[in-house]
Amino acid sequence: MKKLINHVDAVLAESLDGFAAAHADIVTLGAERQFVRRCNLTPGKVVLISGGGSGHEPLHAGFVGHGMLDAACPGQIFTSPTPDQMLAAALAVDGGAGVLFIVKNYSGDTMNFQMAAEMLDLDNATVLVNDDVAVENSTYTTGRRGVAGTLIVERIVGAAAERGDKLAELKALGDAVNKATASMGVALTSCTVPASGKPTFQLGDDEMEVGVGIHGEPGRRRVQLTDADGIATELVGAILKDLALKPGQQVILLVNGFGGTPMLELYLMVHAATKVLDAAGIKVVRHLTGSYVTSLEMAGCSITVTAVDHEWLTLWDSPLHTAALRWGV
Amino acid sequence: MKKLINHVDAVLAESLDGFAAAHADIVTLGAERQFVRRCNLTPGKVVLISGGGSGHEPLHAGFVGHGMLDAACPGQIFTSPTPDQMLAAALAVDGGAGVLFIVKNYSGDTMNFQMAAEMLDLDNATVLVNDDVAVENSTYTTGRRGVAGTLIVERIVGAAAERGDKLAELKALGDAVNKATASMGVALTSCTVPASGKPTFQLGDDEMEVGVGIHGEPGRRRVQLTDADGIATELVGAILKDLALKPGQQVILLVNGFGGTPMLELYLMVHAATKVLDAAGIKVVRHLTGSYVTSLEMAGCSITVTAVDHEWLTLWDSPLHTAALRWGV
Repeated sequence: MKKLINHVDAVLAESLDGFAAAHADIVTLGAERQFVRRCNLTPGKVVLISGGGSGHEPLHAGFVGHGMLDAACPGQIFTSPTPDQMLAAALAVDGGAGVLFIVKNYSGDTMNFQMAAEMLDLDNATVLVNDDVAVENSTYTTGRRGVAGTLIVERIVGAAAERGDKLAELKALGDAVNKATASMGVALTSCTVPASGKPTFQLGDDEMEVGVGIHGEPGRRRVQLTDADGIATELVGAILKDLALKPGQQVILLVNGFGGTPMLELYLMVHAATKVLDAAGIKVVRHLTGSYVTSLEMAGCSITVTAVDHEWLTLWDSPLHTAALRWGV
Repeated sequence: MKKLINHVDAVLAESLDGFAAAHADIVTLGAERQFVRRCNLTPGKVVLISGGGSGHEPLHAGFVGHGMLDAACPGQIFTSPTPDQMLAAALAVDGGAGVLFIVKNYSGDTMNFQMAAEMLDLDNATVLVNDDVAVENSTYTTGRRGVAGTLIVERIVGAAAERGDKLAELKALGDAVNKATASMGVALTSCTVPASGKPTFQLGDDEMEVGVGIHGEPGRRRVQLTDADGIATELVGAILKDLALKPGQQVILLVNGFGGTPMLELYLMVHAATKVLDAAGIKVVRHLTGSYVTSLEMAGCSITVTAVDHEWLTLWDSPLHTAALRWGV
């Protein structure tokens, strides 16, 4: 295992300390590193809290800040955070206007956020993200998995919270953005969880996993590595089939690296994906390209498409100031 | 070779097309993709042009935009762009106030930018960046190599150009920032140039290359992989020895991934590097953490330190709008 780490047990703590030091103008760590929260809360605003296993950086802590999340709870690598963490985060940032959880659909996460919601006596307080069209049910999931589309849900709902939307409106908006969002990914290599020290799965030198999950869960099929255009055709095809968009529909296109993929390749995938979308008459009106929802050092990428209208675009474009995404401020 | 590409010969062109599509609000491609330029130039401003071999994305095209470069010339992967490219870029963006080249110190780049300067009849028009303290002379370089510190030179000089500084002032500023900047890196794995199809160099399962160049050039020594604290001590130690900073000095700290390194590890390296800097009494006043000057999918990182005063910090913080770096706008 080749990693820039010290003791395996200290990876998360030391990385969070570095993150908090690097972004001390935006975030601060909660006691015992239970959560990352904004330094400056927006008074009177519904607070948005997310979280999940670590190893997907910059998700979620990198999305804490003005226009997106108020707090994020980091679990150990590929392991759900505990209900105590969400409880501590909510108590730290809730200003009385309400708490909304944004949760990727993994069994551990949904159970623990549910327990936290009960402890906090929150009703109707969770947006469950399940944008991965690759498979129904998977290693850690009943139903579809939540993957890179989570970023888009967190951003659009975060912007609406910032403008003063109420809890019920935000919950409805989050559900709607999730429904309008679909993703699918492909892995060229595995990743290695530090505590395990071994690759999570094995892939032959000429193989790829189509529809892979962000913890290396199996996808639709394992096939011989094909070219970028072939990959884009399959991923975008599955996404368009799921979303059933009409020609002329405007979308956000997120080409997301899994952690070990160079930008050179991600931009090439933007080109490949855009050709497929163009052919279907779908208009990409906003791009986001980079490694935002990762699987440690896994090589590969996912493609996410969100159908948007003018209002959602306005929310997307509004001022945003987080560690990983920043514009307009 | 596992990469998200189509034909090997089309990698750069397709990636540039994707890049230009994703950032059409900021950049446009020159004819035959000879350069990437800003859509909107700032009238009356000295123009800054950089460039170099591709495979280091987002350097340099990702730094084209308000507050940084006016144009960037992408060579083939790990290959200098041609003088014709710099000539075409300069003719496209020069508004009459002058042209400054910012060039990483590699023999091919310096020769080709020099030829372009002669074709354009430019005097005193190049800032040569040679921030890598690892070795004197290397595979492609006489003297020290230019690596991730180039980003900091391009940013601070770009900000000064935006405020209206004249050519001679910008040249002097660039030389001064370069002198105040030092970098050193470590590779855990090699990278594979698509046209070659084979890893550029071989590293054993328990080895790392200390002082590696951004094309996989040999560094100071190849040793057994050590922990993050040990790596930070060696890299920061070499940097501080070179810069000879006094306790209390304020610095920008750039922890840069080489393309295959997850953010989890980069932030852990921020933590490790900060401990070494703290012990030396050096004050990190700005952080930049991410994969900005890469070597395709190489795993590893470099650390860059720039000693700054209040004026340079003001320039660093001024509005910046490029594909890879954005703040204040």
